[in-house]
Amino acid sequence: MKNEIRNERKLENRDFSTEDNKHFEGAMTQGNGYMNLRASFEEDLDGEEQGERYWRLPANVTLEKIRNPVSKWGLYVPGIYGKHPILGEELVNLPYLPGINLYCHNERFDMRLSRYSGYERSLDMRNGILRRSLTWETLAGPLEVCWERYLSMAEKHCLFQRITFCAREDMELTVENFLDGGVTTNGYDHIESFEGICGGGLEMYLTLDSGQQVGMKSVCRVPGEAKAVYKRHGRRIAETFRLDLKNQEEAVVEKAGIVVTDADEAEEPGDLKGRIQDLVRGLRDPDSDLSEHCRIWEQLWRQSDVEIDGDDSLQFHLRFSIYHLLRIANDSSRVAVDAKGYAGEAYFGHYFWDTEIYLLPFYIYTCPEQAKRLVSFRYHTLDGARRNAKSYGYRGARYPWEACVSGEEQCSNWQYADLEIHVTADVIYGLCKYCELTGDEEFLRREGLEMLLETARYWASRAEKRKGGWHLTGVMGPDEYLPFTADNAYTNYMVSDSLCRTLEVLEGADEETRAAFGVTPEECMLFDEIRRNLYIPYDRERKFIWQSADFAHFEDIDFDKVWTDRSRPFGNCISQERNYRCKALKQADTVALMYLFRERFSREIKKNCIAYYEDITTHDSSLSYIVHSLVYGDLGDKKASYDYAVKSMRLDWEDQGAAEGIHIANAGGLWQGGVCGFGGLLGVDESGRPLVRPQLPEHIVRIRYPVSLKGKKYQVCVEKDHIQIKECEED
Amino acid sequence: MKNEIRNERKLENRDFSTEDNKHFEGAMTQGNGYMNLRASFEEDLDGEEQGERYWRLPANVTLEKIRNPVSKWGLYVPGIYGKHPILGEELVNLPYLPGINLYCHNERFDMRLSRYSGYERSLDMRNGILRRSLTWETLAGPLEVCWERYLSMAEKHCLFQRITFCAREDMELTVENFLDGGVTTNGYDHIESFEGICGGGLEMYLTLDSGQQVGMKSVCRVPGEAKAVYKRHGRRIAETFRLDLKNQEEAVVEKAGIVVTDADEAEEPGDLKGRIQDLVRGLRDPDSDLSEHCRIWEQLWRQSDVEIDGDDSLQFHLRFSIYHLLRIANDSSRVAVDAKGYAGEAYFGHYFWDTEIYLLPFYIYTCPEQAKRLVSFRYHTLDGARRNAKSYGYRGARYPWEACVSGEEQCSNWQYADLEIHVTADVIYGLCKYCELTGDEEFLRREGLEMLLETARYWASRAEKRKGGWHLTGVMGPDEYLPFTADNAYTNYMVSDSLCRTLEVLEGADEETRAAFGVTPEECMLFDEIRRNLYIPYDRERKFIWQSADFAHFEDIDFDKVWTDRSRPFGNCISQERNYRCKALKQADTVALMYLFRERFSREIKKNCIAYYEDITTHDSSLSYIVHSLVYGDLGDKKASYDYAVKSMRLDWEDQGAAEGIHIANAGGLWQGGVCGFGGLLGVDESGRPLVRPQLPEHIVRIRYPVSLKGKKYQVCVEKDHIQIKECEED
Repeated sequence: MKNEIRNERKLENRDFSTEDNKHFEGAMTQGNGYMNLRASFEEDLDGEEQGERYWRLPANVTLEKIRNPVSKWGLYVPGIYGKHPILGEELVNLPYLPGINLYCHNERFDMRLSRYSGYERSLDMRNGILRRSLTWETLAGPLEVCWERYLSMAEKHCLFQRITFCAREDMELTVENFLDGGVTTNGYDHIESFEGICGGGLEMYLTLDSGQQVGMKSVCRVPGEAKAVYKRHGRRIAETFRLDLKNQEEAVVEKAGIVVTDADEAEEPGDLKGRIQDLVRGLRDPDSDLSEHCRIWEQLWRQSDVEIDGDDSLQFHLRFSIYHLLRIANDSSRVAVDAKGYAGEAYFGHYFWDTEIYLLPFYIYTCPEQAKRLVSFRYHTLDGARRNAKSYGYRGARYPWEACVSGEEQCSNWQYADLEIHVTADVIYGLCKYCELTGDEEFLRREGLEMLLETARYWASRAEKRKGGWHLTGVMGPDEYLPFTADNAYTNYMVSDSLCRTLEVLEGADEETRAAFGVTPEECMLFDEIRRNLYIPYDRERKFIWQSADFAHFEDIDFDKVWTDRSRPFGNCISQERNYRCKALKQADTVALMYLFRERFSREIKKNCIAYYEDITTHDSSLSYIVHSLVYGDLGDKKASYDYAVKSMRLDWEDQGAAEGIHIANAGGLWQGGVCGFGGLLGVDESGRPLVRPQLPEHIVRIRYPVSLKGKKYQVCVEKDHIQIKECEED
Repeated sequence: MKNEIRNERKLENRDFSTEDNKHFEGAMTQGNGYMNLRASFEEDLDGEEQGERYWRLPANVTLEKIRNPVSKWGLYVPGIYGKHPILGEELVNLPYLPGINLYCHNERFDMRLSRYSGYERSLDMRNGILRRSLTWETLAGPLEVCWERYLSMAEKHCLFQRITFCAREDMELTVENFLDGGVTTNGYDHIESFEGICGGGLEMYLTLDSGQQVGMKSVCRVPGEAKAVYKRHGRRIAETFRLDLKNQEEAVVEKAGIVVTDADEAEEPGDLKGRIQDLVRGLRDPDSDLSEHCRIWEQLWRQSDVEIDGDDSLQFHLRFSIYHLLRIANDSSRVAVDAKGYAGEAYFGHYFWDTEIYLLPFYIYTCPEQAKRLVSFRYHTLDGARRNAKSYGYRGARYPWEACVSGEEQCSNWQYADLEIHVTADVIYGLCKYCELTGDEEFLRREGLEMLLETARYWASRAEKRKGGWHLTGVMGPDEYLPFTADNAYTNYMVSDSLCRTLEVLEGADEETRAAFGVTPEECMLFDEIRRNLYIPYDRERKFIWQSADFAHFEDIDFDKVWTDRSRPFGNCISQERNYRCKALKQADTVALMYLFRERFSREIKKNCIAYYEDITTHDSSLSYIVHSLVYGDLGDKKASYDYAVKSMRLDWEDQGAAEGIHIANAGGLWQGGVCGFGGLLGVDESGRPLVRPQLPEHIVRIRYPVSLKGKKYQVCVEKDHIQIKECEED
């Protein structure tokens, strides 16, 4: 199945189907920096039990048989997590807030069971408003219904909903507003205590197994004098209203849903009830909230939109990516962006290297304050990283492969948790990129230095000296299909660079600072020795970099024999055992290295590497395509570069891959493909302005994008034979 | 804590302590070839809940915090398994059969709460009778109690129990016989349906989640006219009897417990109730059963006892090992011997390579029929092994690292399941040893050939040809501390030998047989090519074998820095991550190879290998010590050989390591240490008689042991300067 694209600013769906409903729930997820809500229907869907309990294991996230195949509710507040006995700290799926059932006499409206016509669902990417409309053919006659909802950018704790009815006969309608706490997260129930209050709306207070507390409230405004009738069933509380609809008269039901938690920043902790009362009291009238909400969204788009002339599909998919990148930008620096963009539970709400390598560039160049929050998140979890290093028997700080709020390792599969140590170097790479491009020297000299130093200490105790050289053995690179290797080129190069940065910043630090951090000249010498001697498996003669020093020990594989069905990932066609010992890559991390250090590798090495690795790369990772697009772009192969970008951009929308959430790293990657690839943004030039060297595909006429750089804002416009870089007034 | 040894034929314990009670439960486990029962007390123990439900993960069996630290009931019928969602097919802990509580008015007898004196618990290794006696200081006066029980060798479905009371005052005693189905296995409840019947004794019928059915019954005989009063609580059913005890008069309560299952061989399946009725009707009087039981045990000891003059401790520990090896010898060839000797749940009742490498020699030399059952078990699970090979993408048959009844892989940790492929070669090694030493040519030519051929086909599709040589990469050898290696010497040598045997047996097979198995000359040539070219990382100059071809990629480690507390395993002092990439071995598999092929490696190679590997071997595996003892023996270093044997023999009894079950492989290993090492049994000589080359430690005067060889029985007596080998009459 492929999604159509009708409007470059709207996500649309005009056929309800159990096959792809879950995909649309994910793809149209809404968010406002405080919370995120999957685009599930307001009402119950027949047969789609949301409280199923089962035992989710960490293995084979991408290969397992997915539960809840048709619909999965999801309301996520980043930072609100539970303690799963296997999966670790896990983002909690909160009680369903937007719930509204409709009854016409004995008929309950249900997308699966009811008769209806003219169905349309859309998400307006300009403002994050989700809209659904249809005509319900009730036994009492046709009823036009239109649902709208948005997570307010003006009042971040609020979800606003509106349902507009227009009946074609007089009829009686019952509206049931509900909050449902009977939900699970990956099959697990994290709610330890529950209080439901009916009266003056619906109210719910939870304590999670993390000890965190959550309060929710919903208030409805219905036409006429309808009085609420309350119901409870398990952890679901509900209130029903009876409406008398008149033929051809419009009737509107409005609902405000509120979420607060005791982890909310800059607010009084504890008294959730009081805060909810205040929020209810302070609610603006809906029209005024909406206009403020739209104004904020407009501003967000102004500083990030990429305009493409000549390729509607690329234009649409870039906006799809940017919409989600804007929607998941958290207001808090205590959380980062999880692998599924807070639009599903597949990776348990955990944070990976995606943050630094795939997402951060977008925020650095479009919204440096947001980039700072992400970099600060790593600073705030430095203590967790210290505990990780210690638990493994090392000094310093070791960032976790899978992070949550504490910074302690959350990954349950040892081969990733223990071996993908590159994440620690990736964090530093992101930190340095942030400081370089924003000019935030202060952060670099304080928090940054601490991060640099502590991770350098980790590397110094993790690396081993053998026969003059330094080595990192027992390592998995970003290519997760070779599980246990020695001297992975990507890792070693990143580590070496990270040590280099540490030494540079130490150099610039004053004596006092160095003393405060306990830095000795011997330590610096050690960092320097490792940096210079960390082994990179470079073949000088062939001008080629091996993925790892022991790459030759892995076996060649005849792809045509094994990968017989190319519509499925390669990993699904081979046992893990065989995959792990073959030269079949999930993604080519050596090629990724050539993008991360675009200016440091000769054209010849890049060419040799991509030529070799491309043939054995399966692109089973969603992070793989865009890297190939970018490196081919740097090599001047515009066709290959564009073809790979097309593969990358299709993942979530066209190929309907969003059921379990958004591939948010790919969204950030696609933005890099569009702006840093085609649009040619390389970084900063000597005068502090954007350095641009466009790689426009033949058919693209123009790309325009805004750039933030060292506190200034620019508008870049790239055409075939023309580059315009305009500094903008601050707004 | 160390156990004392007072009697070389008895396991004794005279102090009840919550610290070591669980150890004694395991160490004194009883068995009769049909079922196995841990030596838990008959009565409930205060605070020791047996129905705890928790989620047991497969990782870190040896490192985790153990549940049920004081007491764990266990009744196991090999072949009766449940389906655990993570642990796979799992041996089920059946309802507690020997349950008997004692009440004196309001006092319940409890080892933890009651006052008593003269406590003694013992297991007589000669006949497997467990005995406990003490004087219970009741409020009504002292009461001498003696509990005895045994699993009958005469009637394998029966547990016989007897309690003898002698009161020192007239008193009223209530005896509560119970069956308790409220038990779990590794925290999991495998019972899907349960029926409890009270009347004419207690009866219980279960259906497990494997679909298997189990029936249990107990009948009591009490003095006088006491009538049963029945009780039920959950899955526990009970009957109580009131006895009036007279001062100084002995009163005896007898109980017979019966277990049947629908998996029992050579019996009508299905009608469990009828079979139980028949068994109750056919019950012999206790004295007659006991004498038959003892006669069978005597016979077992006659064909296996090892007598040592000059070392009481070795004598005792060898008998301890032999007792358990006899106790767990199953009557069925549908099951093997699990890693904990059916005396605990730690390894889920799974079968490892232990069977062939550590246990089989004992049975081959003392009880060839039992050896045949174990070898046949592998034949019966050949189809499962075929399914394993297929699921990994290979041809032929691949034995599982962890086997249960189906032969399909049950190991939940991929690194063991996927990488410890040596088990398939180990199975063939065992098969060939069995056939060679028993002379069972018929088995070799039929079942054996099928096993050889199918495993050879697996190897042919698993091994890879590269630059002329053949390789097995992505492998874990028996040394589980190097997780992912290329060309492990142990594995490759074993595989090469296994292919060699396959070709030999194929050579001897007639055209018809070869055709029936679809053998082609090309296939044989391929086997031969692989056999000859499978790479062994042999360093000709140094006369040394590397553990694997990529051994140099692993790091040296400073043991003194890391392993600061030598009372704990090395693996507890280091993170798995670091352990996995260091040259620290759990056991030296290259050294093991030199024992398995004692005659094939030169003295020099042996010396060089043990010298190098010993320094980096942690012996964290219970399988490690005895191998070092044996290889040092072969090198003529009697002291080192004996010292390692001492370390091996202490594990279960002296060091109280039996809480979670018996290290049964070590028991088999110790027997090999005593007989094949000190006693010098090398195998068969050219005339078909035992080949003996003793390595008596200086202080040992004489070792005598029986040997079965090619259908004949011998008695070997080894003294310092004298070897006597006597052929025995058949009995």
